[in-house]
Amino acid sequence: MAIREKRRGPTIWKRCLMAKLLPSPSLPDFDPAHLPGRRVQLGTSAPLKLDCGGSLSNYWVSYQTYGALNADKSNAILICHALTGDQYVAENHPVTGKPGWWEILVGADKVIDTNKYFVICANILGGCMGSEGPRNINPATGKVWGLTFPVITIHDMVRAQKALIDHLGIAQLFLVMGGSMGGMQALSWAALYPESVFSCAAIATSPRHSAQNIAFGEVGRQAIMADPLWQQGDYLKGLDRPAAGLSVARMAAHITYLSESALQRKFGRRLQDRSAVSFGFDADFQVESYLRHQGESFVDRFDPNSYLYITRAMDYYDLAEDLGHGNLAKAFTSSPTRFLVVSFTSDWLFPSTESRTLVKALTGANANVSYVDIESDKGHDAFLLDEPEFHRQLAGFIQGCEKGRAGGAKGRRDDNTTLPSSFRPSVSSSLPEELQLVADEVPSGTRVLDVGCGDGTLLKWLIDYKDVRGFGLEYDRTNVKNAVAKGLGVIQGDATVDLSTYPDNAFDVVILNRTLSELTQPLEILAQLRRIAPTVIVNIANFGHWQARLHFCWLGKAPKSPSLPYEWYNSPNIRFCTLDDFRNFAKEGNMQIKKSIPLNGAGRPLNTLLAKHANLFASQGLYVLSR
Amino acid sequence: MAIREKRRGPTIWKRCLMAKLLPSPSLPDFDPAHLPGRRVQLGTSAPLKLDCGGSLSNYWVSYQTYGALNADKSNAILICHALTGDQYVAENHPVTGKPGWWEILVGADKVIDTNKYFVICANILGGCMGSEGPRNINPATGKVWGLTFPVITIHDMVRAQKALIDHLGIAQLFLVMGGSMGGMQALSWAALYPESVFSCAAIATSPRHSAQNIAFGEVGRQAIMADPLWQQGDYLKGLDRPAAGLSVARMAAHITYLSESALQRKFGRRLQDRSAVSFGFDADFQVESYLRHQGESFVDRFDPNSYLYITRAMDYYDLAEDLGHGNLAKAFTSSPTRFLVVSFTSDWLFPSTESRTLVKALTGANANVSYVDIESDKGHDAFLLDEPEFHRQLAGFIQGCEKGRAGGAKGRRDDNTTLPSSFRPSVSSSLPEELQLVADEVPSGTRVLDVGCGDGTLLKWLIDYKDVRGFGLEYDRTNVKNAVAKGLGVIQGDATVDLSTYPDNAFDVVILNRTLSELTQPLEILAQLRRIAPTVIVNIANFGHWQARLHFCWLGKAPKSPSLPYEWYNSPNIRFCTLDDFRNFAKEGNMQIKKSIPLNGAGRPLNTLLAKHANLFASQGLYVLSR
Repeated sequence: MAIREKRRGPTIWKRCLMAKLLPSPSLPDFDPAHLPGRRVQLGTSAPLKLDCGGSLSNYWVSYQTYGALNADKSNAILICHALTGDQYVAENHPVTGKPGWWEILVGADKVIDTNKYFVICANILGGCMGSEGPRNINPATGKVWGLTFPVITIHDMVRAQKALIDHLGIAQLFLVMGGSMGGMQALSWAALYPESVFSCAAIATSPRHSAQNIAFGEVGRQAIMADPLWQQGDYLKGLDRPAAGLSVARMAAHITYLSESALQRKFGRRLQDRSAVSFGFDADFQVESYLRHQGESFVDRFDPNSYLYITRAMDYYDLAEDLGHGNLAKAFTSSPTRFLVVSFTSDWLFPSTESRTLVKALTGANANVSYVDIESDKGHDAFLLDEPEFHRQLAGFIQGCEKGRAGGAKGRRDDNTTLPSSFRPSVSSSLPEELQLVADEVPSGTRVLDVGCGDGTLLKWLIDYKDVRGFGLEYDRTNVKNAVAKGLGVIQGDATVDLSTYPDNAFDVVILNRTLSELTQPLEILAQLRRIAPTVIVNIANFGHWQARLHFCWLGKAPKSPSLPYEWYNSPNIRFCTLDDFRNFAKEGNMQIKKSIPLNGAGRPLNTLLAKHANLFASQGLYVLSR
Repeated sequence: MAIREKRRGPTIWKRCLMAKLLPSPSLPDFDPAHLPGRRVQLGTSAPLKLDCGGSLSNYWVSYQTYGALNADKSNAILICHALTGDQYVAENHPVTGKPGWWEILVGADKVIDTNKYFVICANILGGCMGSEGPRNINPATGKVWGLTFPVITIHDMVRAQKALIDHLGIAQLFLVMGGSMGGMQALSWAALYPESVFSCAAIATSPRHSAQNIAFGEVGRQAIMADPLWQQGDYLKGLDRPAAGLSVARMAAHITYLSESALQRKFGRRLQDRSAVSFGFDADFQVESYLRHQGESFVDRFDPNSYLYITRAMDYYDLAEDLGHGNLAKAFTSSPTRFLVVSFTSDWLFPSTESRTLVKALTGANANVSYVDIESDKGHDAFLLDEPEFHRQLAGFIQGCEKGRAGGAKGRRDDNTTLPSSFRPSVSSSLPEELQLVADEVPSGTRVLDVGCGDGTLLKWLIDYKDVRGFGLEYDRTNVKNAVAKGLGVIQGDATVDLSTYPDNAFDVVILNRTLSELTQPLEILAQLRRIAPTVIVNIANFGHWQARLHFCWLGKAPKSPSLPYEWYNSPNIRFCTLDDFRNFAKEGNMQIKKSIPLNGAGRPLNTLLAKHANLFASQGLYVLSR
């Protein structure tokens, strides 16, 4: 498909910094052909078909690579950049001179380790850093595209990237990842080319642009188009640029990248180089000065028309509709890709709810998905910043994917059953006895959800030895990371809220292991479990144990026993229930007890004699419930 | 102070609609002197001193009134309008023809009942609907003010309103209220003129403009100033207006008035009059079309320079700093005003946290404050919309204030002790026996916080009969409304979160009546109570009662008794504790039990014999704890 490829190194940086050399105005007038890095002309034999109905021939794609491609071309990671990003991920930017936008994550011995991986990042179609976009020359006319450039979509961007990856001879990317609009591209990759994407990390993103985000996009476009210097996009013919309009667009957008608390922390109401307000319209406050700087410096490196096209592509993004499914889950049906979805609690541009919608669809499609909502006050920009918890989770996911591709743990049953057992990973086959009893009740080859899965020990065993298609739901982020690092698909969340997002009969078996007494609304939870799976396995602590009774009755103090050593005011158990109570509870929840196994403090079944008085002698009870 | 006053009725509306009659452009070029309603020139004898150091003489204030002022001028309510509002609160707008912006709330038999109250609303200083602002004629020069108009503050606006109220001969306003920037004015009123403000409702507002809001203000100003037609504010000399810049400013601001969920609900990704996207930059989506309309229609009625001045005044607003206290609580020390603070859960322009900061300061100043966070998905605009819960709370507050001014319940001790008992309200003196026992332990004249105060029955009694300065904290909004309607100061909130906002020793006595067992973290709560008051009165349910023990021990089921009739899985009590447990708990919390009264199921003290075995026979225990 490609006919020419040029490589230019940093030696010619100076020629690229034409923006700095041009007398006026300060807009990106550097020649894209002279930017450092790789550049390839694609679509020469077969044009790129676009969603708008048009097509592009002989289009340029500028890209950067880091690390070396291995012999079997299996170590490639594609990074997709966001709205105002570009291909300079892990090196100083040729125009601004600032460090690469994801240098914190990408490099030798970093989370995305360029000693191990071949990292690719291409300037998007419609961009202004070399790839075909409105400020390039239309090869058909020899004139600048301007507004004659076709309106492109996120899928179009991805199709151009696919042509690049084909050109590089890479059949499958180990990982496609991106944040914000980069995450949209990563999702489209997985939806359009599932076999080419082993794993996919979609960070701080959404499967569709929300009404609020379209509104912000529109404000930015109107600011640019309201600038008389925009001249219907035809400004490149002269020297004047709609810098004021672009600057206002950037200022408005920049607020959405932060959070109120981040702004408060960084600037508060502090004044800029003055001790009192000026009673005028100068930038009295630091936050004003900062925003003005953001606006002004942006116009040095970005093309106003590109801003229109890219924001439009984001507005048009609706993964469910774009692929004609009308249903997000269908976009990922039978996807072989492993997904990591990450959101940040203070991100209000792509809030956690958007990620949860995506995760719900992925679980509905039975895809292998892990999700974590990172506690952060840094807003949307958190994905670009030093956010160690995010980096830990991503590292865990990559580790799990490495194991997975090495033939280890599988999230999906279908890529497991065909493996001969000799190929199975060498994990210890021994589970703690209490977990083994639970595991024994799970039929082979079923779809399993482990609610409160901890670090995934049980789940991993079930996948490895019982060929289940297993997922976890876990509140604690460290547990989630450890489980994900095992290659498991785990959703970080709260059972009280998140169980309701699973569709009816999403699973064959749900496991609730020693979690019931920690839940505020056990009956509501049971109803959810019943809805999403016909079989529910529950393990509860028995407060009816004779020691607890004695403690309460004789001493007149809240029940305590060797296996329930907490004080009433700090116990994780907020719901007290005996084995007899549980029978009524199951009835109340419209469930039948198919099997009950009273256990002692060590998690072993009681002997037959004691089992006859289980409510007095059992420390726990294991139940298999069915509808 | 006033020399002239004109009154013009709706008969001259047509003359005011000059904007519609002018051939071009569509900007508010109607003559402010010809707008319907009242108008008065103030500052003729003594000029208005401004925060910037300048002053204004002979300035106009345009205002509207509804209802009639009573003989003793005690029924006046001042409504302060927000950034883009004006004096046309409860009548069709003379330019847009739309209903008054708070007509839903103000009118005959409405929450602000114009049959009872004389309602005043003045166009703010710096506005563009008649009051002195940048588009008026500077009387000193005979030319349009433009940017020579002094930069004003919220306090300056309030000072001009005070001059109007003085002109009307009103010594004390029954209520000053406003939302958003109107709330800022209401707070400034209470801080600057405490004796003139009987009550104050600050809605969806903040005691200081946040960094994020300054940032949005700056974007709006930059959008206007980037428009070449703005001409350094001197556009009124010609026919061209910076309509595009003002429109972009309005579009950006308008997003902040809504919420993501409101936008999703109203527009989602629905298209505007088309079945497929256009692959262009038209308004494909309904939300784009809506925003464009908001921008375009705004320029018909608003002056771009006014927009600069008013947003600047908001940015400058910091009540703590403005009054030189550096401490918000000091701005309200010994305030005789009753406050209602209202926020809306989905308001991200003035989020609930801002209101909580304000409430914390007001409680720190021992002011009579009530607060409620209204559950709403309508965003900031909720204060203008049909939000029945908000209207109910406001009605309850007004009712409480009416009772208060009639000589009823008092939030502050000092305005009570001087009243002879014959003037006291005729409330029933009988409390339920159980509450009476609690009330008996509260010393007269103390500062009391009732945590989980319910509908305020106990608190009201304590204020009326024991001269306490009492406040409540209550989670349930209906309870809050009923308590506030009694004239009590009640904060709607969650003890687990909100107790920490009270300063050390904020109270003499804290009451925690039958709430402890419903709290997830009782020990942490006890530590907070201990911190904020030297004396804590607690009433707990006794799970050690013989019936509960028998139920547990004999039947092997979770404790139940006639006074604890719940199932283990749906009980409001999530922490089980016996009287013996409580003794250890108090010790663990570093508190001494000064007094303990075991009670039976009817809330009466046990007889001496049974009291010796309280842990077996008491249904509840009443404790007085001290540090």
